[in-house]
Amino acid sequence: MKRVFNFSAGPAILPEEVLKEAADEMLDYKGSGMSVMEMSHRSKIYQQIIDEAELDLRKLMHIPDNYKVLFLQGGATLQFSMIPINLMKHGVADYIITGHWAKKAAEEASKYIKVNEVASSEDKVFSYIPDVSNLKISDDADYVFMCDNNTIYGTKYHSLPDVKGKVLVNDASSCILSEPIDVTKYGVIFAGAQKNVGPAGTVIVIIREDLIRKDIDPKTPIMLRYDIHAENGSMYNTPPTYGIYLCGKVFKWLLNMGGLEVIHQKNLEKANLIYDYLDQSKMFKGTVEKNSRSLMNVCFKSTSTELDDLFIKEAKQLGFDNLKGHRTTGGMRASIYNAMPKEGVIALVDFMKSFEKKYLV
Amino acid sequence: MKRVFNFSAGPAILPEEVLKEAADEMLDYKGSGMSVMEMSHRSKIYQQIIDEAELDLRKLMHIPDNYKVLFLQGGATLQFSMIPINLMKHGVADYIITGHWAKKAAEEASKYIKVNEVASSEDKVFSYIPDVSNLKISDDADYVFMCDNNTIYGTKYHSLPDVKGKVLVNDASSCILSEPIDVTKYGVIFAGAQKNVGPAGTVIVIIREDLIRKDIDPKTPIMLRYDIHAENGSMYNTPPTYGIYLCGKVFKWLLNMGGLEVIHQKNLEKANLIYDYLDQSKMFKGTVEKNSRSLMNVCFKSTSTELDDLFIKEAKQLGFDNLKGHRTTGGMRASIYNAMPKEGVIALVDFMKSFEKKYLV
Repeated sequence: MKRVFNFSAGPAILPEEVLKEAADEMLDYKGSGMSVMEMSHRSKIYQQIIDEAELDLRKLMHIPDNYKVLFLQGGATLQFSMIPINLMKHGVADYIITGHWAKKAAEEASKYIKVNEVASSEDKVFSYIPDVSNLKISDDADYVFMCDNNTIYGTKYHSLPDVKGKVLVNDASSCILSEPIDVTKYGVIFAGAQKNVGPAGTVIVIIREDLIRKDIDPKTPIMLRYDIHAENGSMYNTPPTYGIYLCGKVFKWLLNMGGLEVIHQKNLEKANLIYDYLDQSKMFKGTVEKNSRSLMNVCFKSTSTELDDLFIKEAKQLGFDNLKGHRTTGGMRASIYNAMPKEGVIALVDFMKSFEKKYLV
Repeated sequence: MKRVFNFSAGPAILPEEVLKEAADEMLDYKGSGMSVMEMSHRSKIYQQIIDEAELDLRKLMHIPDNYKVLFLQGGATLQFSMIPINLMKHGVADYIITGHWAKKAAEEASKYIKVNEVASSEDKVFSYIPDVSNLKISDDADYVFMCDNNTIYGTKYHSLPDVKGKVLVNDASSCILSEPIDVTKYGVIFAGAQKNVGPAGTVIVIIREDLIRKDIDPKTPIMLRYDIHAENGSMYNTPPTYGIYLCGKVFKWLLNMGGLEVIHQKNLEKANLIYDYLDQSKMFKGTVEKNSRSLMNVCFKSTSTELDDLFIKEAKQLGFDNLKGHRTTGGMRASIYNAMPKEGVIALVDFMKSFEKKYLV
């Protein structure tokens, strides 16, 4: 068995310890005589797994008691519909457009609600986070929507938008659990699990209780109602039981490491290793503004697309996988989520250096 | 490691061979150096996994080319909304109410469409399948809805309703792949994976292409549109990649065994072992009408609730798990899905016999 350094943007690398435990427990979870995926979601033993997962996530993120934690299906994309459907009162929402996913979210919301784009970085191919210190927040905005880390472009907010008292909704799919955040600043935080938390098919929703309403459009599909999921502890129907179990293992892995302050330091170290090299390289350069850089997705280019292709090819041969940038941006992208070990980043930078030495004309 | 005989109604037992393979491949799928759950869903290697899963399912069920196979999220419950939203034209649908889930489906549909209950077995606590040979099908019915196998009550259709030319929609969650069926009789077949196919969080939808329409309510949440999922090969957003991989393994397990005719024979043998014993026992009796019996969920009672409780308790001590009936029916339920080996059923019947001998007064 040989593991590659997997720089995939998502679904993405998971901690090797977590995968090993899951493999060991595949046929017999803690003497139960069955796999977690064979357990009734109504059993005591499974209830303990989901309860522990929730408690551990609450500990990690210091989630206050007036927030519900939900483990749902449908990915962030279903949240793009659920947010406006469940949160709309005045029928207006403000969206900050920092990339493909924020745009998709706004498009979907516009089916239900008047969407105001209060800021956008589309003018420069989303290579920066716009100034959000003094946005024209709509007086009657039901919420303000942001996408914290933009996976495709490699940007990340480094300060929160001033939402002037409105509810802030954050798609944190590609940066959740990468650093401590103040949950009380948000009305809703949601994240597809498949980047920093677990396998695809589970989405985590952290939502302030007063935003969970019953007086929404009665034609809302029942699986799209936060109130139904909240009342039923994420078990209105069978939840993605195995995915939640793996998320729980990742939460414990983070807690055992010392929590989000510790992983944040590690993430800073890893990202700086690459960014510092990019800033002095004569061949490679980062593609986003320095003060918008992501700790999770480092996007860069060489001097030509031919050289980019060669780099990706040689890298793959050496065990650095999934370094190709998104099809809409080209270039390279190294996704260095929590589970990417520092050794992987050191090895990558070493390879970049030797590649530069070999091919720089 | 000791495996129990797991009679859970769902999530349920999976083939041990499949779990062993999954454990072996957890850290390194076929030399890729990563787990399937760490792979980009856009990678060639994952595309091959989902393509093979679809092909194998097509082979197993002889699915004609004019049907799409979709791997979606949200369980059967989300299908309860998607069916009316996507299929309605005249705004009328006929529902056959054979249990809790059919009722839930009808309730959800009635948000969008006029629901006619054309038959029901609620008068006798859903202990039989009503006569469906000459239903009063609505002239303008957009479809007729049935739930093939009723997990809670242990009933199953043994002949299809005459839908008089209308589209038949089948919730086959708890009997899919348990026997050969003629797919061309149906407009839509859907099934949550967590009973006979794989882990919870994946739902299989087999839908005739002409039923996939673009001219539906434009306010439909994008994740609830069959056209979007069909156009994108179940990859409009990140699908439940690991669940689909496991479903694929179960498909191969069935193909290697000889297909659905072979598993059907095995299922008949297993079910008959219990039903034959129930028919001559002085202590236990089956709770449903003989001509409505399920091959997957065998429901039975002893002479008292006290004895039922004792039976469940002693059974658990001996390694027969999850035999407790659903909370709404009481009694016992042995779910004997495809993956339950014959030895498990033989051992259960042996235990029932010894229990009867010990406690029959």
